[in-house]
Amino acid sequence: MQECFTSRLSQAIRNQGAAVVGLDPRIGALPAGLAPAAEPVERILAFYSEILPVIARHAALVKPNIAFFERFGPAGYEVYVETCRQARSAGLIVIGDVKRGDIGSTAEAYAEEHFRHADALTVHPYLGSDSVKPFLERCADGDRGVFVLVRTSNPSAVEFQDLPVPGGTLSQAVARAVAGWAQDVAPAGDGYSPVGAVVGATGTTHLQSFRELMPRSWLLIPGVGAQGGRVQDSARAFDATGLGALVSQSRGVMQCFAPDEEDWHGKIEAALLNFIQELSIHCRQGP
Amino acid sequence: MQECFTSRLSQAIRNQGAAVVGLDPRIGALPAGLAPAAEPVERILAFYSEILPVIARHAALVKPNIAFFERFGPAGYEVYVETCRQARSAGLIVIGDVKRGDIGSTAEAYAEEHFRHADALTVHPYLGSDSVKPFLERCADGDRGVFVLVRTSNPSAVEFQDLPVPGGTLSQAVARAVAGWAQDVAPAGDGYSPVGAVVGATGTTHLQSFRELMPRSWLLIPGVGAQGGRVQDSARAFDATGLGALVSQSRGVMQCFAPDEEDWHGKIEAALLNFIQELSIHCRQGP
Repeated sequence: MQECFTSRLSQAIRNQGAAVVGLDPRIGALPAGLAPAAEPVERILAFYSEILPVIARHAALVKPNIAFFERFGPAGYEVYVETCRQARSAGLIVIGDVKRGDIGSTAEAYAEEHFRHADALTVHPYLGSDSVKPFLERCADGDRGVFVLVRTSNPSAVEFQDLPVPGGTLSQAVARAVAGWAQDVAPAGDGYSPVGAVVGATGTTHLQSFRELMPRSWLLIPGVGAQGGRVQDSARAFDATGLGALVSQSRGVMQCFAPDEEDWHGKIEAALLNFIQELSIHCRQGP
Repeated sequence: MQECFTSRLSQAIRNQGAAVVGLDPRIGALPAGLAPAAEPVERILAFYSEILPVIARHAALVKPNIAFFERFGPAGYEVYVETCRQARSAGLIVIGDVKRGDIGSTAEAYAEEHFRHADALTVHPYLGSDSVKPFLERCADGDRGVFVLVRTSNPSAVEFQDLPVPGGTLSQAVARAVAGWAQDVAPAGDGYSPVGAVVGATGTTHLQSFRELMPRSWLLIPGVGAQGGRVQDSARAFDATGLGALVSQSRGVMQCFAPDEEDWHGKIEAALLNFIQELSIHCRQGP
């Protein structure tokens, strides 16, 4: 029997902290000297093959965003699959940032495919519970997790997510639904459920309320760094024991070097260690 | 210069009607005698290679749902790309039912990739206008279209989409945003914009209000047939000249035969002709 997702997460965070490294490959931001004559997708894979073992020495989680792989068509999708495989065999927990969302039978197809490659997935809530159910069912087996988009970190998130609905905002209504799904899927005991939520670090005034609305859900917090969120703003998403949240940074770690920089491994490692240290200072948690 | 999307759509509908054939490949529903020893993805491609020319004789549009291809991993994605290519070279307009939705720079990657394969795409609204903008920009060029999810056809659509917000329901608020985007992107003149909306045929009491809220938007109506919607329920989505809407059916046409049926071409053709005829009777439009 495989170990349950939430136990793996808690243990990984106790050992290595809650830092999640976002993998959003951009050709212009790869080391210029790395396989310069190869096809773009091969250069991306070469980059991750070299850096994933470095990441795995310090952090527990990576979050590849499939869009940046999909941009290169089927060959890019193959590199996504292979990147996930290499990350997992290096011991990393993989959150596939796929943001899929479709009606029941179609969601079934997405869930079946994407849980092959990742330990957890991000999903859209707009179509309601039957679009999420195929993902929840796979979480109930214990070794998978899901993060429902609740309040995103982009400027136009306000347009719909902050609309007033009875009892609060739309994103709070979604949060309440997530809390219900988390309750349904939660394993025995009073720990966290594998049903989590994405809550952007730029909507910081709301973090506390989302923490309270979803007491059993891991909160995945993107938007730190290039998007304007600060690590310390994430503090309220953690519980008193330093669990309950994951903080993701992409560009600040993986694009912290100039393309012609020779020691890009060292730069990434230093940026990652700095990110982990900031988390441990501000968020009552860490290795 | 390529012909503009809305003109192509109007002309296609005047010639062949507003029927859209959904392509949701399911292995168990393929003709049993077709390449039975081949890999699943090869069987899917063989099926579409044979039937797309038949569809193109009668209908103007197909809507492949990428989830059912993606289920087979990168090889499935390749078959999606090839299915789109064959459909377009048979003269069909392709609506890629990809339901993507992510923040700005990520949406840019999705838009770039998926408009390579399809003439129009479906997108999620939950993240607001900056997640839709990269798609809108490509529509402004004239030869591409987008359909924003407004009110879906699944039972749990009520959970969030029907929530009351100031001025109506959430889906009506999304409809108003779509109308604004349609106004921004609309070419000169008072015709339809390339910015359309998905409105499920099962929420029929609302069709009239969505038609009024989005006067310049094509409404893409799924959910007819297996999902419980009836062709006649779509009538209110059309304008007085028989334009303004597209009606999609998947299983009712493409899975209308038993797998061991020999004349599956004939069955599909008959089901399609029947669908087109129903549309022309009930919806003031057709060839």
